[in-house]
Amino acid sequence: MYDSPNNPCPVIAKRAQEHRDATIAAVRPPLPDFDGLPQDSSQVPKFILTPEEIAITESDPADLVSKLTSGAILSRTVTVAFLRRAALAQKLTNCVTELLPVAALERSAKLDRYFMENGRPTGPLHGLPISIQEMIGIKGLTQNAGYMAWHDRIAAENAHIIDILIKAGAVLYARTTQPQTQLQLETSNNYFGDTVNPFNRKLTAGGSPGGEGALIGMRGSCLGLGTEFGGSLRSPAANNGLYGFKPTSLRLPTGGFMASMLAQEGIVPVVGPLSTSLEGVKLIMQTVLDSQPWDIQPSLVPIPWRTESQLERLPSGEKCLKVGVMFDDGVVMPHPPVLRAIKTVADALTGVKGIELVMWKPYRHDWAWEITSSLFFCDGAKEVTEDLLALSEPEPVLPLAADLIRLTNGGTVNSMWDWIKKRDVYRGEYAQLWRDVDVLLCPAGPSAAPLIGTAKYYGYSSQWNLLDYPAVVAPVTKVDPKIDTADPNYQPRNVKDKENHELYNAQEYEAAPVSIQLVAKRFQDEKLIEAMDLIKEKVGLPFASFT
Amino acid sequence: MYDSPNNPCPVIAKRAQEHRDATIAAVRPPLPDFDGLPQDSSQVPKFILTPEEIAITESDPADLVSKLTSGAILSRTVTVAFLRRAALAQKLTNCVTELLPVAALERSAKLDRYFMENGRPTGPLHGLPISIQEMIGIKGLTQNAGYMAWHDRIAAENAHIIDILIKAGAVLYARTTQPQTQLQLETSNNYFGDTVNPFNRKLTAGGSPGGEGALIGMRGSCLGLGTEFGGSLRSPAANNGLYGFKPTSLRLPTGGFMASMLAQEGIVPVVGPLSTSLEGVKLIMQTVLDSQPWDIQPSLVPIPWRTESQLERLPSGEKCLKVGVMFDDGVVMPHPPVLRAIKTVADALTGVKGIELVMWKPYRHDWAWEITSSLFFCDGAKEVTEDLLALSEPEPVLPLAADLIRLTNGGTVNSMWDWIKKRDVYRGEYAQLWRDVDVLLCPAGPSAAPLIGTAKYYGYSSQWNLLDYPAVVAPVTKVDPKIDTADPNYQPRNVKDKENHELYNAQEYEAAPVSIQLVAKRFQDEKLIEAMDLIKEKVGLPFASFT
Repeated sequence: MYDSPNNPCPVIAKRAQEHRDATIAAVRPPLPDFDGLPQDSSQVPKFILTPEEIAITESDPADLVSKLTSGAILSRTVTVAFLRRAALAQKLTNCVTELLPVAALERSAKLDRYFMENGRPTGPLHGLPISIQEMIGIKGLTQNAGYMAWHDRIAAENAHIIDILIKAGAVLYARTTQPQTQLQLETSNNYFGDTVNPFNRKLTAGGSPGGEGALIGMRGSCLGLGTEFGGSLRSPAANNGLYGFKPTSLRLPTGGFMASMLAQEGIVPVVGPLSTSLEGVKLIMQTVLDSQPWDIQPSLVPIPWRTESQLERLPSGEKCLKVGVMFDDGVVMPHPPVLRAIKTVADALTGVKGIELVMWKPYRHDWAWEITSSLFFCDGAKEVTEDLLALSEPEPVLPLAADLIRLTNGGTVNSMWDWIKKRDVYRGEYAQLWRDVDVLLCPAGPSAAPLIGTAKYYGYSSQWNLLDYPAVVAPVTKVDPKIDTADPNYQPRNVKDKENHELYNAQEYEAAPVSIQLVAKRFQDEKLIEAMDLIKEKVGLPFASFT
Repeated sequence: MYDSPNNPCPVIAKRAQEHRDATIAAVRPPLPDFDGLPQDSSQVPKFILTPEEIAITESDPADLVSKLTSGAILSRTVTVAFLRRAALAQKLTNCVTELLPVAALERSAKLDRYFMENGRPTGPLHGLPISIQEMIGIKGLTQNAGYMAWHDRIAAENAHIIDILIKAGAVLYARTTQPQTQLQLETSNNYFGDTVNPFNRKLTAGGSPGGEGALIGMRGSCLGLGTEFGGSLRSPAANNGLYGFKPTSLRLPTGGFMASMLAQEGIVPVVGPLSTSLEGVKLIMQTVLDSQPWDIQPSLVPIPWRTESQLERLPSGEKCLKVGVMFDDGVVMPHPPVLRAIKTVADALTGVKGIELVMWKPYRHDWAWEITSSLFFCDGAKEVTEDLLALSEPEPVLPLAADLIRLTNGGTVNSMWDWIKKRDVYRGEYAQLWRDVDVLLCPAGPSAAPLIGTAKYYGYSSQWNLLDYPAVVAPVTKVDPKIDTADPNYQPRNVKDKENHELYNAQEYEAAPVSIQLVAKRFQDEKLIEAMDLIKEKVGLPFASFT
């Protein structure tokens, strides 16, 4: 039993929570105590932080970098502001595994000194605080990846991408929560429980890097790194009103991560940025690829971040963009606010010079999920099960982790090869259909930020992991119970569709962020970000405020 | 028993041989009969073909293409010449599974008509005959990949790369032999027996595309396609005095091939050109990559063939090249002619302006082989065994195929993942060591073309499959028993070294082609070919005639 005196889990969890709390208590100036947790936490910082701290933490990371690299602001000032807001975010949403106030303040002071002595920044991210999902290794710190059995794992080295960020001048100050097994679209583990949504605590922050999602959603960070495998980086971004970018695999370095099944090649895990702005996304891509990470991780493809425009232009100068529009993947019909977000954006794009819209007919997305879920645990879930059962009294397997593990299929090398062949056939078929569009505008998920415990449908995100297409999510609006009423006449098409349909009750999702997703063909990462920028500019996104 | 009346294999083999012989008998003008098979077949065509046929078939493929695309020569004339020389090559070296005289002559006539009517070629390979390893699918033709059980497999479609070559104007006229399982450094199967070396029939043509090697070595083709997985494309090139190029994986399209374990991702199978000239290699790379094959096979990396120079230059204009030199991989000491080839080239490069030589210390090549051989049959050899045993009375497993299958290690998804992790660590370590050189000059194998049945050491080629570094082999010289005497004092370091050492007897290898290998970092394919061109030019390669 979990509560038996011999079960190590409660002891491990308590120790982790105490450590986390101690790092938060060490933040200076200390945060005032406050009572109660409001349903919508997003406005709380306004009552607690100083106007300067609010201004700093709500800045676009690109503006912060421009001030930091020109000496217009001290890294220490920025770091203190983010440490305080992150501490507050933790109290409100349970998103942090630990803060690093001592190391971060030492580091920012050192960077400030460097600037003062040399009159120039150390690198393109000089002095910028960046938050990091816990499974991305930082030398000397825990790396338990959400497994209780790994509670004593300490990273021997920085992950490769951490080294790059540090060299570029970043300040590491916050580490964030993630779900058990990393394979959940929510963030719950036996160390810390649930990470909740800043805008509505009945809702999930998403996952795997749900801690990043909630922390950045709370503006306790403006830029962070998360990982994904089946859509889990985009889910926290979409659920928290953020930009989240899943690049094509093998562009950003993944050395030094901790998770089960890292050697899996059927669907390649990726890392990517979450940020309050699209500029933040670009900042990470540019900085990391400028470092030529393929020299260290030879599996990466040596394509630099291309800054020249990837779009054609009309003779009159406007950029051309052919946008496929998909409201529904043919399997699970998204909830009304998601359909509204897509429709509003598509309507606003209609008639814009240079932009052409075409309806996209989804091609067998149900089959895509069958391939994806068969590849996820293609060892018959042996590795993940061993990691879950490694303690003398194993930790409880959480429901959403168990749901996915149950889909295990095959378990031999030969069954895996069968699914890889099916994957490659499907990828080839999809590539043929794709020839006619530049990007696809589609839902980021079947709902706005889901109710906790209900995020079960991966299709809208995992589709692009299977195809390995770059995908970016962007905030559009929030659920408004007055307009986002359920369609009483909708007839679900299948069990999954019914389950999703029955979840919807506009009141429950009040204020939940609603996002769109934009997808491009494999390796057209730069074109995708440029297209997102263009759409954002033409449409005037977002339509709601997230601070 | 193989000879029992119920065993289907002899019947299948007889049918395949009769079909082959009929296609050869259909070549016009017919070849004269001749008696006996000389040890060195390479001079026989000079006594049988017309001077024009000899001139055509011994041309550089780039010169032929230039004549064909300018209308200076008819495709039909070229095709007839290659058909006749290929028929002769078959009689001498047993390298062909079938010729395609009817289809090839129809095609070349059609191409000639097109040129006459339109005054321009159909594409960059207009009218050029190209030979193809049998497992690369051609619509409507066999695709047995050397397995007896697959005798009735017929390709439903052209392989993707075949479609590209046809669109570029190539004429398909010859299909070539390959070994059972494709995983042998020789070419022997139960259909056709051994493919022998044009220069010395006691020696192997190499494998897997040994048919390509012998056919092009005989100048029965000037340009062909072969596949590899553990070095087998370079082995036939090296053994037959040819250029053979293994590009970085996922550059050239592999859709529509037939083999066991095609879904294997631990070491990715590749296709590449074998040719009588380096220009032929470039012709294939340029033509195939210009077609943007990644639009059809999304797993390919969308990097075009870069024609701008990849090398730095001295202020005085000379290209700079830092060449690592490795005589010996630290596991198996190459035979004297191989060491002589490396030394001659390195000596000739010494002092050349812009070129710097450094000695290369091999890093754990024995461990690399352990990783490689463990990944080869990472399903516990289940798939390959099923394919070998699929007939009611299974075909005999040939010794060199069996040798490799015996190395099977693990057999579960989890054991495969363990080896993939080891692979990635090793790749990372090697990348760190590589930072100081542009290219590595090293042996193409532990010997000149090996005695039939003795090609057992993969290390010199498989090393670069494991690392996925592009590698090209180039002809240097031939074994000369007068100079290439054995070192009587050599003390073998291990069992493999002893086995290789004891094979050497200069007389046996008389006239065997000796090649070098040049290797570059992953995705530096263009730099590698440019470096090979530079070295060829500075050194004046080859030092022997292969026609």
